[in-house]
Amino acid sequence: MSGNTLGTLFTVTTFGESHGPAIGCVVDGCPPGMELSEADIQPELDRRRPGTSRHVTQRQEADRVEILSGVFEGKTTGTPIALLIRNEDQRSKDYGNILDTFRPGHADYTYWHKYGIRDPRGGGRSSARLTAPVVGAGAIARKWLAQAHGIAFRGCMSQLGEIAIPFESWEHVHANPFFAANATLIPRLEEYMDQLRKDGDSCGARIDVVAQNVPVGLGEPLFDKLDADIAYAMMGINAVKGVEIGAGFRSVSQKGTEHGDSLTPQGFATNNAGGVLGGISTGQDITVSIAIKPTSSIRSPRASIDKAGNPINVETFGRHDPCVGIRATPIAEAMLALVLMDHVLRHRAQCGDVRVDTPDIAPRSR
Amino acid sequence: MSGNTLGTLFTVTTFGESHGPAIGCVVDGCPPGMELSEADIQPELDRRRPGTSRHVTQRQEADRVEILSGVFEGKTTGTPIALLIRNEDQRSKDYGNILDTFRPGHADYTYWHKYGIRDPRGGGRSSARLTAPVVGAGAIARKWLAQAHGIAFRGCMSQLGEIAIPFESWEHVHANPFFAANATLIPRLEEYMDQLRKDGDSCGARIDVVAQNVPVGLGEPLFDKLDADIAYAMMGINAVKGVEIGAGFRSVSQKGTEHGDSLTPQGFATNNAGGVLGGISTGQDITVSIAIKPTSSIRSPRASIDKAGNPINVETFGRHDPCVGIRATPIAEAMLALVLMDHVLRHRAQCGDVRVDTPDIAPRSR
Amino acid sequence: MSGNTLGTLFTVTTFGESHGPAIGCVVDGCPPGMELSEADIQPELDRRRPGTSRHVTQRQEADRVEILSGVFEGKTTGTPIALLIRNEDQRSKDYGNILDTFRPGHADYTYWHKYGIRDPRGGGRSSARLTAPVVGAGAIARKWLAQAHGIAFRGCMSQLGEIAIPFESWEHVHANPFFAANATLIPRLEEYMDQLRKDGDSCGARIDVVAQNVPVGLGEPLFDKLDADIAYAMMGINAVKGVEIGAGFRSVSQKGTEHGDSLTPQGFATNNAGGVLGGISTGQDITVSIAIKPTSSIRSPRASIDKAGNPINVETFGRHDPCVGIRATPIAEAMLALVLMDHVLRHRAQCGDVRVDTPDIAPRSR
Amino acid sequence: MSGNTLGTLFTVTTFGESHGPAIGCVVDGCPPGMELSEADIQPELDRRRPGTSRHVTQRQEADRVEILSGVFEGKTTGTPIALLIRNEDQRSKDYGNILDTFRPGHADYTYWHKYGIRDPRGGGRSSARLTAPVVGAGAIARKWLAQAHGIAFRGCMSQLGEIAIPFESWEHVHANPFFAANATLIPRLEEYMDQLRKDGDSCGARIDVVAQNVPVGLGEPLFDKLDADIAYAMMGINAVKGVEIGAGFRSVSQKGTEHGDSLTPQGFATNNAGGVLGGISTGQDITVSIAIKPTSSIRSPRASIDKAGNPINVETFGRHDPCVGIRATPIAEAMLALVLMDHVLRHRAQCGDVRVDTPDIAPRSR
Repeated sequence: MSGNTLGTLFTVTTFGESHGPAIGCVVDGCPPGMELSEADIQPELDRRRPGTSRHVTQRQEADRVEILSGVFEGKTTGTPIALLIRNEDQRSKDYGNILDTFRPGHADYTYWHKYGIRDPRGGGRSSARLTAPVVGAGAIARKWLAQAHGIAFRGCMSQLGEIAIPFESWEHVHANPFFAANATLIPRLEEYMDQLRKDGDSCGARIDVVAQNVPVGLGEPLFDKLDADIAYAMMGINAVKGVEIGAGFRSVSQKGTEHGDSLTPQGFATNNAGGVLGGISTGQDITVSIAIKPTSSIRSPRASIDKAGNPINVETFGRHDPCVGIRATPIAEAMLALVLMDHVLRHRAQCGDVRVDTPDIAPRSR
Repeated sequence: MSGNTLGTLFTVTTFGESHGPAIGCVVDGCPPGMELSEADIQPELDRRRPGTSRHVTQRQEADRVEILSGVFEGKTTGTPIALLIRNEDQRSKDYGNILDTFRPGHADYTYWHKYGIRDPRGGGRSSARLTAPVVGAGAIARKWLAQAHGIAFRGCMSQLGEIAIPFESWEHVHANPFFAANATLIPRLEEYMDQLRKDGDSCGARIDVVAQNVPVGLGEPLFDKLDADIAYAMMGINAVKGVEIGAGFRSVSQKGTEHGDSLTPQGFATNNAGGVLGGISTGQDITVSIAIKPTSSIRSPRASIDKAGNPINVETFGRHDPCVGIRATPIAEAMLALVLMDHVLRHRAQCGDVRVDTPDIAPRSR
Repeated sequence: MSGNTLGTLFTVTTFGESHGPAIGCVVDGCPPGMELSEADIQPELDRRRPGTSRHVTQRQEADRVEILSGVFEGKTTGTPIALLIRNEDQRSKDYGNILDTFRPGHADYTYWHKYGIRDPRGGGRSSARLTAPVVGAGAIARKWLAQAHGIAFRGCMSQLGEIAIPFESWEHVHANPFFAANATLIPRLEEYMDQLRKDGDSCGARIDVVAQNVPVGLGEPLFDKLDADIAYAMMGINAVKGVEIGAGFRSVSQKGTEHGDSLTPQGFATNNAGGVLGGISTGQDITVSIAIKPTSSIRSPRASIDKAGNPINVETFGRHDPCVGIRATPIAEAMLALVLMDHVLRHRAQCGDVRVDTPDIAPRSR
Repeated sequence: MSGNTLGTLFTVTTFGESHGPAIGCVVDGCPPGMELSEADIQPELDRRRPGTSRHVTQRQEADRVEILSGVFEGKTTGTPIALLIRNEDQRSKDYGNILDTFRPGHADYTYWHKYGIRDPRGGGRSSARLTAPVVGAGAIARKWLAQAHGIAFRGCMSQLGEIAIPFESWEHVHANPFFAANATLIPRLEEYMDQLRKDGDSCGARIDVVAQNVPVGLGEPLFDKLDADIAYAMMGINAVKGVEIGAGFRSVSQKGTEHGDSLTPQGFATNNAGGVLGGISTGQDITVSIAIKPTSSIRSPRASIDKAGNPINVETFGRHDPCVGIRATPIAEAMLALVLMDHVLRHRAQCGDVRVDTPDIAPRSR
């Protein structure tokens, strides 16, 4: 209720601050009997780990995950799975100068007003570092969804600042530090980022994520619509300012004759719906796009105020991602997996196991 | 848990189908002692009522609300407030032909697959008619928020199909059937809608909503971020495919130096954040935009299938809104009010009453 | 969250006051496809209806239930089922004299202090009349549990005031106004109640309820133990002051060698556990006992105070049950059914459908 | 939803198994600004720690708690407080012989049937060791409730097996290993326990807990009644089979003239209600009694079956409490504190801060 638990049946309760002793989460509701070890989780954490290229924060964190509970002899038991990640590279002194000032565009200001106290070290609880436990929990959901229903998740960056990144192939995503599904544009993206760093500035990004092989029938019809829960999860990722499902804002200028996806005996002809109709999955790919704002912690001096209300200039040093969007792809995939996992369990509760034999599944190509 | 309850502390549990005996909701968590009668709720219901212009469905529904509980001698008692709206104009025969077929872009298909049974009369539970109880509940939240904190809600249509509608003044919103904050463009919008109707087609819309005089500090930091809950609520409105907070998707191509709103002793200089930083309200206006897809029930014949998987053509007769976005403004305002109401109560629970005396509130002009 | 919703997956949200326009509830989470009509619900309501014997309140209420939603062509659709019961016999004037005074043992005092306002007509929200919607919701759960798993619920009064009522046979329960599983003692119980009425006094009662044919494996291990949820539900019934599972308080003086139920290839040898071990059902009968306090609204004058704190004498006229326990049996059965229904759905969510083929089920005799 | 989270606004999500790497919990919803360190929590953990007398399990566990998050410079920040307790004395081999058999009266049987897999080491998740995180979380609640409202918690054993323990004074509780509020009876209790150990048997106990200085108005009126939530929390403690509030089962044979607590200008004259009327606190002491069954793990051989359904004899070796009730007092106090903490926050949300200045508070003597 205080906003640190995600999900209703498959829940993730996170804890921790960027520069406290540890971060982690408790994953509850995982079906029993699934093989699980740290080796299933660590690779996903490694994908979002800092320090993997010159375009992200240089903080050195192994982000080594430890499973504390819920697994016996290599299998889940149905009891809570606690994940622990010790913080290692805490340079709290880097942040001392921001204790009494507010960075424009940063949660400094709102935390201070809400709680009357805040942990300023590395952004405290508002740090993007807190997405690590989510990615860890997401890895558990992904494994179960893959095994039980063959559901898969993919994501890529489709725009970096002003540069649109055309989709070429999923194969390219793992071959560049931007999670771009594109091979030709990488040098231009690197050059763009290098210039940003020199300027002491930051930029936004657009990320696309897709869930494939989704069964028809997931989602609740009125308030916990599948797309509503996806929007909630995505907007909960640090720095996200917009969410689209399927055609998204393009729907505004579409006609009904254009937007509504025709059904054929072989499946849906198009996917403007993004795999969701009336809040319930259609069996097509679920397609989501998110807008990520530029990092607020930048070297360029900005006009701001201090706690007493006096005007000041803020320059932020320390180790920051010049584009938080660069590491956002695995996070968005994890969030999508967590939402689907929750809805598969919700479907089982009320309607029994999900159907995988519907005759009229749409083509799943992107 | 089955998706018919909105909110955590101020909850709205709705029930009903478009052509069943009645629709309504139970509003729980309202603080005691507020004056409340049907006269506070009916005007909001009238704003979204069908049949008010030639551009919306001609269904004749008075949507007369009855308060069944929770009020004693004209004041709320702190117990649940049940709202009941009897359905009057149920022409179930209009929909008989769609029982065995699926309209492209409609929830017919997904309800059928999820539940194995569906109420096809007027779209059943998936009908936009089910937003009426939400608007009713929203009226209660709006009254309390206005009295307790002076919070106000406004909304307007900013795009109809291909036609962008520049903001001129809030005064115009009530003077045209589109909720347009614009006086000069109305004839063109009417013409556009008339042509659509002739063509048997439909179109999308963009709606902007704003909450004004919002206290700083509302929202939970990690998962129940204020903007996450807003995205969830908005995406839960029928036909919504995209949600933006503040600069939204424009953030993607912004630089950090441009996006981050500077703070001055007089308040924030700009509002790219849309009134939310780190998931918590800044005290500025909360600004939200939503994309509404074109109505799926259109006269133009569409390729589809029946329940047996055979190809068919679907033409939908009956009384449908050619642009569901036209009546969406009061719904989006209500949703925003319900989210804020919930977060005011959540703030009270953990942090005590909200602060209204923060020295550095930003200018509230749009 | 404001305490008017029971359950997590199969939820019952109630509303209404004793002398307001109506009472009712919204039942959410019911699996689709079950045949349901008012005829399934009304008989259960009739069992707890007032005015059926001289030993209960003489209020004349037909308690006629109307299903407002969630059913199409006689079958549940998976959407919320709203139940409405109009109040008919509202003699609000009977209660006018208690507006400014507090009855000893009554919720008058606490409602007043909690909310600063209360609906005094017939006890308002604190009236036992509010158990009617629970009984209605329970009838839906009972039907589903009977059809899906053969689970049955029984209950009886085992003590009335000082008079213990030995169990003879379930057959007797429906043949007397006390729900006593006993034929020989009825005249004595009637005499006891007649004397109480003459004295203007009231008495307590003990009720036993049993769930039969319960699958093994229902219940969550740590906090939402099956017995914990049963205790919560039972203690939530008006006037209940104690709850026991299985041997209950007799366990205190038992030895481990006596209490622990031996297992044999034919099942458990005894049932001290009351059908629950470690918070999870064993497959044996679930046995519950509750203590119901004497009615607080009595004719005999009692020392009390008014709202100004002045000493007064309170005599309560109007139509009250001299023993609320007399009508409590169907309520306790309904509560037990609602808890089990919820846990069957929870089990399906995490562990798949409940098992009905366990080889080692204990004998189910009482 | 999978039963590992307690509370709604002040939540405790626990994890861990008896012989896994660690146990712990995440406490969410704590108001910001309270001084907190391990030194506030460790003493409560020490009260329930094993190995403190010859009458409890000889397992050697320091139960050293570490705060992982939610505290900055010695004060709570409003973000989740994670507590970690590493398991140290894991003699997993002691339990190897029970992997394929079911102890009478133990959760072995039900876990196995529910999940199809269970962690048998030390009882796994069903071990009473899992009450340690609850006690840790309770210490946080107790500190806040004491500082904010002066609420205090006390508890004692009032019966050990067949021996009733008359209340003499709270002072004695800390001076004996039984938490008995009695000095004279201790030698007899010690003798009783010594004999039990020799017999390889176990016994039950009754525990009384009291909350003092409770504000009037806590609790929700219909389902989340204060006493219902207390019953839920208490029945959720390992081995509890019965719960009473106030007069409890004595209410059954009371008359209304006797049970209803008279109000006087100086407060309530008696406390049969146990401090709760209509589900809401009266301002009097909240008095609760619980029945704890005898430990199921005993040396005496018992008839049982193995997983294949064959008859066997079970003798349990290892280190078990011969009366789990002996260490239950601090656990029950913690549970009561957690329930009250949650309801104070819930009251703040809907009704504003709790009132401490009611003129008519009852005498608080036991």
